[in-house]
Amino acid sequence: MLASTAAVPFVAGSAWAQGDPLPSWNDGPPKQAILSFVSAVTREGSPDFVPAPERIATFDNDGTLWCEQPMYVQLAFALDRVKALSNQHPEWKEKQPFKAVLENDMAALAQGGEKGLLDLVVATHAGMSTADFEKICVDWLETARHPKFKRPYTELVYQPMLELLAYVRNNGFKTFIVSGGGIEFMRPWTEQIYGIPPEQVVGSSIKTEFKTADGRAELIRLPAINFIDDGAGKPVGINEHIGQRPIAAFGNSDGDLQMLQWATMSGNRGLGLIVHHTDGAREYAYDRQSHFGRLDKAFEAAKQYNWTLVSMKDDWKEIFPSSASSQGVGSRSLR
Amino acid sequence: MLASTAAVPFVAGSAWAQGDPLPSWNDGPPKQAILSFVSAVTREGSPDFVPAPERIATFDNDGTLWCEQPMYVQLAFALDRVKALSNQHPEWKEKQPFKAVLENDMAALAQGGEKGLLDLVVATHAGMSTADFEKICVDWLETARHPKFKRPYTELVYQPMLELLAYVRNNGFKTFIVSGGGIEFMRPWTEQIYGIPPEQVVGSSIKTEFKTADGRAELIRLPAINFIDDGAGKPVGINEHIGQRPIAAFGNSDGDLQMLQWATMSGNRGLGLIVHHTDGAREYAYDRQSHFGRLDKAFEAAKQYNWTLVSMKDDWKEIFPSSASSQGVGSRSLR
Repeated sequence: MLASTAAVPFVAGSAWAQGDPLPSWNDGPPKQAILSFVSAVTREGSPDFVPAPERIATFDNDGTLWCEQPMYVQLAFALDRVKALSNQHPEWKEKQPFKAVLENDMAALAQGGEKGLLDLVVATHAGMSTADFEKICVDWLETARHPKFKRPYTELVYQPMLELLAYVRNNGFKTFIVSGGGIEFMRPWTEQIYGIPPEQVVGSSIKTEFKTADGRAELIRLPAINFIDDGAGKPVGINEHIGQRPIAAFGNSDGDLQMLQWATMSGNRGLGLIVHHTDGAREYAYDRQSHFGRLDKAFEAAKQYNWTLVSMKDDWKEIFPSSASSQGVGSRSLR
Repeated sequence: MLASTAAVPFVAGSAWAQGDPLPSWNDGPPKQAILSFVSAVTREGSPDFVPAPERIATFDNDGTLWCEQPMYVQLAFALDRVKALSNQHPEWKEKQPFKAVLENDMAALAQGGEKGLLDLVVATHAGMSTADFEKICVDWLETARHPKFKRPYTELVYQPMLELLAYVRNNGFKTFIVSGGGIEFMRPWTEQIYGIPPEQVVGSSIKTEFKTADGRAELIRLPAINFIDDGAGKPVGINEHIGQRPIAAFGNSDGDLQMLQWATMSGNRGLGLIVHHTDGAREYAYDRQSHFGRLDKAFEAAKQYNWTLVSMKDDWKEIFPSSASSQGVGSRSLR
């Protein structure tokens, strides 16, 4: 856990004084859909009014709140960990998927498929205490840089989505992350970067085991998957962790399809929104053919269910916070 | 979910005006231990100071926040559900553990052990949507009465613990329930009764499955255990749901042992507190021999680890809120 005495998301208060809660959003149907929805569910007497404690909004992370190309950030972390640990594992030189990682052979890595990736996760994410893993994650985020933008990954979050998070919270919503990514990979920094505290982060997890020794109690991370928070797992994870049905859900890929169905197919008014990566110049352009963050079935579903489709190129004035206003996760020290 | 526009726990503000945040606690070592701990972790400059976002307090429910005798409330619920559903299950008349329930044969039920209880839970807690199950729970709580006190179960919560919940929250703590009971059995009423919202409730759960049909999305409760939040499962559940280590933990039985270890064996100052049921006149007196809420190993551990032991008879002026100030869960309508 980063020592944070208060949540400090990027969004400054100045936008509020100017009256536009979403200054990085161009005027257009997506912005109007958001404003109209929030107005409808917060106005007393509105037929769609929802009391504040029931205003639950869920946000995917990879590709929805931060950049997921050229690969998921957590995969970049796992690859770096394999390299960092390779001296302790001479057998990895001849063993896939580790061999592919050590040789930077992304084609061979891709051939290993999901099984290979799970092997990487287990080898790099288990075998230590939860406290030690948190430190490993934070240390990596402090020094790792994105290959294209040369900035810390925690600065490559979407400015319009930071404004959206603040806007709905200012309207009585509770905001949650619901990500296929590792829950303990995200929690050390989500409060500082997004204003979302650890208990409002839902994600995939591995099993842990409680142990006491020498007067100390620890949780040890085991090499076994506990829960995959993706696809139909997202509504299950939402129910398990949040215990209320969202009235708004935000995603960008097929892994978010069921989460958006869960939020909008309730019989009450719900907002479903999909971020479409259309900006190859300022970020990346991808959808149906992408290996990471494929948007295919959920793209069709958006039309069927009247979900709001955001074109990053057309609807967003800015993609990332300017360097001056941003801060890496490393700017605060671990307790 | 109960339609609650704001959390309204029992505790009135008047106690604060009088300067004593724990008016139902007699002066004595437990009350002093609580006040001293909260002062130490909240006073800037104190060697034990903890920033507000890291002030996590976890509370067991059965026997710690509400009455668990003569049987767990959720077991009383399951028995009533068996009776209510028996017309649809003629085979139950000849099949244990259902036969024992229908014949009120508690000895035969006890003989079935944990396996029999799990059979009851699965038969009565699965096979419906999460929304339908919530309604079944709330409807039952509105009409069920405790056999000894003749009051709704949600009124049989401990007044001193309600004051304690409010006191630590007023000192910047986040309060969580961490119970062996069913997570979805508790969530519909914990915000109203304890001021603890659904996402801050951790408990045992069964598996769910996401389904869409006729334009609606549902989660269906399956007849399979997902997680048992008891014993060494409590630290695991805390890590999974809360993502931070508690600095204070409150329990009453052996099922809370590891949760209190997790909170206090951290190298930093932590508060562990055990409620000892010593008041046979005003409530029940039980510990090492009790079938529900057995306090044996955790009783020994309390001495070993310097946990605070609360004698309900000696340390609490009141046990339950007076009828006038209390309100059953039925006083608000389901949305």
